[in-house]
Amino acid sequence: MSEFLDRISSPRDIKKLTVAELDVLAGEIREFLVESVTRTGGHLASNLGVVEITLALLAVFDTPEDKIIWDVGHQSYVYKLLTGRKENFATLRKFGGMSGFPKTEESVYDCFNTGHSSTSASAAVGMARARDLHGDKYNIIAVFGDGALTGGIMYEAMNDAGRSKNKVIYILNDNAMSIAKNVGAVSKYLRALRQKPLYFKSKEAVLGILSRLPKGGAQMARFIRRVKRIVRATILPSTMFDDLGFDYYGPVDGHNTEALINVFEHARTSDKSVFIHVLTKKGKGYRPAESDPQRFHGIAAGNPDSRARDFSAVFGDKLVELAAENKSIVAVTGAMPAGTGLLEFRAKFRDRFFDVGIAEEHAVTMSAGLAASGMIPVVPLYSSFLQRAYDQTLHDVCLQKLHVVFPIDRAGVVGADGETHQGMYDISFLYAMPDMTILSPSCYKELEQMLDYAVNIHNAPIAIRYPRGCEAPESCAPDFCFGRGYCLAQGSDAVIFTTGRMVTTARNCAALCEKAGISVQICVFPTIKPLDVQMIKDAAYGKKLAVTIEDGVIYGGFSAAVSMLMSTEKDMPRLLIKAFLDKPLPQGSIAELDKMSGMDAETIFNEIREKINER
Amino acid sequence: MSEFLDRISSPRDIKKLTVAELDVLAGEIREFLVESVTRTGGHLASNLGVVEITLALLAVFDTPEDKIIWDVGHQSYVYKLLTGRKENFATLRKFGGMSGFPKTEESVYDCFNTGHSSTSASAAVGMARARDLHGDKYNIIAVFGDGALTGGIMYEAMNDAGRSKNKVIYILNDNAMSIAKNVGAVSKYLRALRQKPLYFKSKEAVLGILSRLPKGGAQMARFIRRVKRIVRATILPSTMFDDLGFDYYGPVDGHNTEALINVFEHARTSDKSVFIHVLTKKGKGYRPAESDPQRFHGIAAGNPDSRARDFSAVFGDKLVELAAENKSIVAVTGAMPAGTGLLEFRAKFRDRFFDVGIAEEHAVTMSAGLAASGMIPVVPLYSSFLQRAYDQTLHDVCLQKLHVVFPIDRAGVVGADGETHQGMYDISFLYAMPDMTILSPSCYKELEQMLDYAVNIHNAPIAIRYPRGCEAPESCAPDFCFGRGYCLAQGSDAVIFTTGRMVTTARNCAALCEKAGISVQICVFPTIKPLDVQMIKDAAYGKKLAVTIEDGVIYGGFSAAVSMLMSTEKDMPRLLIKAFLDKPLPQGSIAELDKMSGMDAETIFNEIREKINER
Repeated sequence: MSEFLDRISSPRDIKKLTVAELDVLAGEIREFLVESVTRTGGHLASNLGVVEITLALLAVFDTPEDKIIWDVGHQSYVYKLLTGRKENFATLRKFGGMSGFPKTEESVYDCFNTGHSSTSASAAVGMARARDLHGDKYNIIAVFGDGALTGGIMYEAMNDAGRSKNKVIYILNDNAMSIAKNVGAVSKYLRALRQKPLYFKSKEAVLGILSRLPKGGAQMARFIRRVKRIVRATILPSTMFDDLGFDYYGPVDGHNTEALINVFEHARTSDKSVFIHVLTKKGKGYRPAESDPQRFHGIAAGNPDSRARDFSAVFGDKLVELAAENKSIVAVTGAMPAGTGLLEFRAKFRDRFFDVGIAEEHAVTMSAGLAASGMIPVVPLYSSFLQRAYDQTLHDVCLQKLHVVFPIDRAGVVGADGETHQGMYDISFLYAMPDMTILSPSCYKELEQMLDYAVNIHNAPIAIRYPRGCEAPESCAPDFCFGRGYCLAQGSDAVIFTTGRMVTTARNCAALCEKAGISVQICVFPTIKPLDVQMIKDAAYGKKLAVTIEDGVIYGGFSAAVSMLMSTEKDMPRLLIKAFLDKPLPQGSIAELDKMSGMDAETIFNEIREKINER
Repeated sequence: MSEFLDRISSPRDIKKLTVAELDVLAGEIREFLVESVTRTGGHLASNLGVVEITLALLAVFDTPEDKIIWDVGHQSYVYKLLTGRKENFATLRKFGGMSGFPKTEESVYDCFNTGHSSTSASAAVGMARARDLHGDKYNIIAVFGDGALTGGIMYEAMNDAGRSKNKVIYILNDNAMSIAKNVGAVSKYLRALRQKPLYFKSKEAVLGILSRLPKGGAQMARFIRRVKRIVRATILPSTMFDDLGFDYYGPVDGHNTEALINVFEHARTSDKSVFIHVLTKKGKGYRPAESDPQRFHGIAAGNPDSRARDFSAVFGDKLVELAAENKSIVAVTGAMPAGTGLLEFRAKFRDRFFDVGIAEEHAVTMSAGLAASGMIPVVPLYSSFLQRAYDQTLHDVCLQKLHVVFPIDRAGVVGADGETHQGMYDISFLYAMPDMTILSPSCYKELEQMLDYAVNIHNAPIAIRYPRGCEAPESCAPDFCFGRGYCLAQGSDAVIFTTGRMVTTARNCAALCEKAGISVQICVFPTIKPLDVQMIKDAAYGKKLAVTIEDGVIYGGFSAAVSMLMSTEKDMPRLLIKAFLDKPLPQGSIAELDKMSGMDAETIFNEIREKINER
C-alpha cells in the first residue's frame, strides 16, 4: 500500500529517491501519521508540517554522523519514522514504548534529548564547539519553530553563536504558531520577512555576481572586498539575524522539497553558520488539523472531542468569575491560553490578559511588575515549565513578597509526555523560597475556594498546584481553611499524612489496611506550606507508624517538611515516606507510573503492614 | 566644600539648576563617591559612569511619581545620593545600613528591587500595564547596561514589549562592559552602532522635516503617511531595536548632560515607547577606575589590593592544572571570568574557554551540548546566579545524566550584597534533581581533590559548592573519599552532622559543649548527596541528641535529607536542625548574619544544652 514508505529502513534509502518520489513519499508519511497518531494519541499538526523539511534534511545530510537537534521535539515523529522506528509507532507515548520526543536512549539517530522549548541552539553551539575541538567535520543542525524563538535562552545562544566561528545550521520552522498562535515583536517581524518571498533568490543572485568578479592582485582583492561589503550593506536587505552575525537565507517554502534540498545543500557546503527561514503550515495535508492546528497540536487517543471538564477548566471558569468581581485581577500566560484554561478569560477581559510567548522568566518578572503597581497577576504555568522561572519567582516575587498567584497546572505525574514534562519538582523548589505559600487541592471545589482565597485574601506569593486531568469521583474535601489540615478518617495504629491527588490513594490504602486489621487515620493538608504543625504532632503522637504520601519527588517536598517537623519533636513514631524516587520518571499512564514507583495503594499498604509488624 | 551637593535634599532641587551647574554638581558627586565608597567598599566604576544620566533623569522626570528601575541596581548610588540618602552612605552595605541595591523598603524613590541582571524591562512592562489599566499617566523608565542585554529575559521582555502599546522608556547604558568586557553578537552590533554618532541628529532632522509637511485633506494625509513610511524605511537606518518595534534614539553621549536632557525630554513627551542608546565610560572621572574598571567594579573596604587567596582562586588554579593533563576539560563562564577565578585558564587555554555573557541558561545547556559530544565542561557560577539555570540543570543535564561539573561559588552566606545574592538555595534546589551529586569542601585541599574527582572520575552531573572567601585557619580535612563522611571528634552525648563552612562552627560549638560537660561527636559530610547513610545511623544511635548545621536555607537541604533518613529509622534520637531561616537574609558581615540567624557557635551550644537537659 505504501509504495515508498515500506521500503525505507534507514535514511540511506531516502537518498536514492528523486524529488518526485520524495513528494509521493511525503503523502504516504502523512497518511501513516494521521492513521497512527489518531489511534495512539500524540502530536499531529506539528509533524504534518515538517514532512518535507525532514525528507530534505535526510536527503542532504548524513545521519547519524551529522547531528540533528529537534527543538521541543514533538515534531520528531517523521524523523523517527524514517530512521528505523516505524514498527514502534503502535507504542508511541505508552509505558515502555517509543517516546514522543527525541531520546538518545532510543536510537543513535537521536543526538540530544529535548522536551522544553528553545534549547536546541544552545545544545548545537556546545556540540559544534566540541566537534571543532576534536577536529571533526560533521554538520550540526538545530531545527526550531518560531515559537521557540520567543524563549530567552534561544537569544542567549544567538548572542553567543553570532560571533562564534563554530559552524551550526539553524533552521527556523516558521508556522506562525507555538501551541497557540504566536505573539510578540519577533513574530511580527517574521511576518514582515514572510512577505519578501524573493529575498533568498535575490540574495543568491547578488552573491553569485559578486563571486564571479575578476580575481586580481592584492589591491584588486581589497577593492573587491570593499565593493562586496558595500553591496551587502546597501543592496542586500539586512535582517535582524544578519545583524547578529548569521548568513540569513529565506524565506523558503517548507513544502517545496526541491527548494529545501537546494538551500540545505548550500548550507551543508558553506563554511559558515547559516540561518535558514522556512515557511510551513502546521497540520499540512490533513484538513481538520490545517483548519484547527491548536486543537490538533496534541491529541489524546480516541475521539479528540471527548475531553472531560478538568482541573484546568475549573481554574479557568473560577478565574473568570473572580475577575468579574475584582477588576485588579489580570492573567498572564506563557503561550498556553488553551492548555491552562484561559480562553474564556481572554475573550471576556481582553485588556487584562497577557500572552507573553514561551517566556516564563519574563512572565513571572512582568507579573512582579504588575503586582508592584497594584494589580493581582495570576500566572498559570505547567509545573515543569515553571522550572524556567525559578530565579524570577524567588528573586523578583518572593524576596519582595509580592502578591503574585501561581496556579501550577500538570503538577505531579503527567503521564505520556514522560521525563521532561513530569511536574515532580515544584513542591521541592517552591518550599525553600521565603514567604512562598503552597496549596494543593484534592477536588474542584477546593481549587475554587483556594483560588478565591489566593486572589482576594492572601496578600503575598502563593502557589496552587493541581494535577493533570480530573478530580476523583468520590472527592469530598471540607471547605478550605488556610493553614489547616483535616481528618478524613480516624484510626489508632498508623496515620497517613497526604495532600492533593494522593488523597484517593491514601483512602484506598487505608481501606486495605482496615481489612488487614490495621486502623489508619488519614490527615489531609490542603495547605502544604505552611504545614498544620499541631495536627501533625497530635495525629502522630501515640501511633505505631506515620506515613507521608505525595505526588512529587522525594527530596525537599511535603514529606521532607513533615519529616523535619517530626524528627525535631519528642516521642514521635517512625516515618514511612512515599514519594517519587530520585530518578527520571518515564512515560506511561498515571496508574502505571504510580505502580512502578511503589506509589499505588496496594504497595503502600504492604509496606505499612510490614513496618507495623516489624516494630 | 560641596557647593551644590550639600544643597540637594530631594530631586526637586535638581530641577532648579542650570546645565552648567549640573556639570559642577556632577564633579562634586564623583568626589563624594570616590571618597565614600573607597572607605566603605561597594560598587564604584558603574556609578561614576551614570552621574550625568542620573542627573538628567532627575532634571526631566518627576520622581517618585515617575518610576525609575535600575537594572542589577549597583549603579543606583548616585540616585540614592540625590534622593535624600546622602547621610546613609557611611552605612553602605553594612548590617542594618543602606543597601547597595534599590530597595523599596528603604525609600519611596525606589520602585522595584533589583540585584540579578536583566529584570528591569520585564518589571517595567508589568508596571506600565498596571499604570494603563489604572488610567494613570506617569512615566516608567528602565535603565540597563549592555551587559544586561545579554540575558535572555531581557529579550523575552523586548519581544513582548515591542508590540505592546504600554509606554516604557528604555535607556541602554552602553559602556561595553558587564563586570568584565562584554561579549557576543549583540555587543558587536552595539559597537557598530556606536560608530554612527550622528544617527540621533539625522533621525531627528528627517522626522522634523516630515512633521513640517503640509497637512491637507484625507487623501493628502494618506499620501503623507505613505511618504513618511517610505522615507522611514529607506533613508533612516533601521536598527535591530527598530525591527522589534521601538523608536530607537542614539547613540547619545552619556556624559553630555544637555544632550541627555534633550533626548529624555523628547522621550517624556512621546506617546510611544522609546529606546535610548547612551554611551558612557565606566569609572568616568576617576583615573584608577577608568583604566581598570573591572578591578573597580566592586571594591572591598580599605585597600583593594589586599585580597587574599580564596576558594575561587584555589578552584581556578586547580582547574588549570587539571586542564593541562586532560584535554577534554573546557570552561564556561557567564560573564565572570575574574570573579570565578578563570583568568589564568582563559590565558592558557583560549580555545577551551567560553564566556557566553550574562546568560546562565545558555551556559548550562551549551555545556550539556559540549558534554553530549565528549567534552568535560566545567561551569563555575555564583550560587544565586545558578538559580537562573534551574530548568537547564535539571532538564538538559540531569535528565540526560551528562557529565557537567558545576563549581558553585559564593555558596551560603555572602555578606554585604544582601538578600538577592545570598547563596542559600543551591543545596535545596539541586538535591531534588535526579542523578545530581553535591559536594561541599571545608578547606582548599578538599576542594582541589573534589575537583579532580569531579572532572576525572565522576561521569555524571556534579556540583561542588564552596563559600565566598577563605578557608578557616585550622582547616584539616582528611583526603576526600566520595560518598563517605568522617569523624572530626568523638563524643557520647550528642552528635553534630555538618558540612562545608559550618565545620568550623561545629568545632567551636563542640568546644563550648565540652566545657559544659556535654560530650559531642562531630561527623562531617564532604559529600552532601548521596549521604553516608551508615555513618549517620551509627553515629546517631544511642545519642541523646543529633544536630545538623548547614550554610543554607532550612527547607530541602542537607538537614532535610538527614532528617528524612533518621525519621525513617528506628531508635533515633531527637534532631536539632540549625539552618538559615525561611526568610530573606539581609546584608551584613557573615558573623553578623550567622548571629542574627542563630547560627553562631554560642547560640547552637545553648540550644544543644537546653535540649539535652530537657530530655
